Amino acid sequence: MSAAVLDHPVNTSANIGRLRDFVTALAALLDRTSDEAEILDKGGALLGDLVAHDDWLPDAFAAPSPERYQQYLLHCDSAERFSVVSFVWGPGQGTPIHDHTVWGLVGVLRGREESQGFRRQSDGTVAPEGPPLSLNPGEVEALNPAHGDIHQVRNALADTPSISIHVYGANIGAVRRSTFAPGGEAKLFISGYANALVPNLWDRSK
Amino acid sequence: MSAAVLDHPVNTSANIGRLRDFVTALAALLDRTSDEAEILDKGGALLGDLVAHDDWLPDAFAAPSPERYQQYLLHCDSAERFSVVSFVWGPGQGTPIHDHTVWGLVGVLRGREESQGFRRQSDGTVAPEGPPLSLNPGEVEALNPAHGDIHQVRNALADTPSISIHVYGANIGAVRRSTFAPGGEAKLFISGYANALVPNLWDRSK
Ligand SMILES: [Fe+3]
Ligand SMILES: [Fe+3]
Ligand SMILES: [Mg+2]
Repeated sequence: MSAAVLDHPVNTSANIGRLRDFVTALAALLDRTSDEAEILDKGGALLGDLVAHDDWLPDAFAAPSPERYQQYLLHCDSAERFSVVSFVWGPGQGTPIHDHTVWGLVGVLRGREESQGFRRQSDGTVAPEGPPLSLNPGEVEALNPAHGDIHQVRNALADTPSISIHVYGANIGAVRRSTFAPGGEAKLFISGYANALVPNLWDRSK
Repeated sequence: MSAAVLDHPVNTSANIGRLRDFVTALAALLDRTSDEAEILDKGGALLGDLVAHDDWLPDAFAAPSPERYQQYLLHCDSAERFSVVSFVWGPGQGTPIHDHTVWGLVGVLRGREESQGFRRQSDGTVAPEGPPLSLNPGEVEALNPAHGDIHQVRNALADTPSISIHVYGANIGAVRRSTFAPGGEAKLFISGYANALVPNLWDRSK
């Protein structure tokens, strides 16, 4: 790989400063509190502001793959206190049933996403809990492991990609967590990331 | 720009985990102390460990440019408490005389670097202070604004690129600082970065 690709004007048409401002504001929030309810409340408001505008995500981090949904890391905190990920859903794509083990926030940037909550039953199986949640651009879902954090997410649109921005209380690509078969069987799951390069948010001269 | 470039195996041959471990260790140090002498001492030891091994920098962030020295951002902290930058010097390339205004650490990874300290005189000009420092791979220079942080750096090798890893107590690409003409005249300087994409350090499955 030559260096030329690093110099590509990937960010110049994108208002990447919005993402930088979100990252610095979330870091300041985490410096002030470790109360998860407060993090989800105030962090959710910050994420709501971010996904209310669709002018900042560089195209490369918005590209669907025909094979599966894409998880592009956008930023990971130095101490892995949090990570920000762009989820890009092609038509018909979705996740297996899965948990997170850390706090999470999901904000829809483009298209529409459907999230179905699940709860572990006493017999070990998982069963849907409540109706599916439909999220439109600008809307945010909070996931709190203390109150159950098992769900299944899919693109609600049959013919267009959808994009949601996820924020987690860890380096989510490295977290040991679980997927669940409909029967309830848990399987170890470490998601990793689709991208070897993340955007440079930090050039304030641009 | 398509997403394919983000998926390039830029990091797979590089032991990028060394850089991740450096970043997390430095973040932990900054959580423990804000004493600059201690940061330079302990951070310098961490940087010494990092640059003692030359198996982790992806090639794209080691590429010289015939036009000028390159400053590739490798990581910036969420709260802009620190940044890590790869400086790539082509043969004969070097900086103007400049200051930093924040603490800095320079560790040579490849080749050899020469650093000449300067001090402001009472008449406003800058004059060299002491002999030039010659840094070989694995060696680290500390810059403390409290004790003077004006220097000029150049590739000490006439026929080969040199690479040094710089760590600063801010998002250095955004800091308003100065270059100095030999006569002493200061000029505002904001360095920015050469790259729109930074390496993904955080995929622990690789
Ligand atoms: Fe999820
Ligand atoms: Fe310098
Ligand atoms: Mg902190």
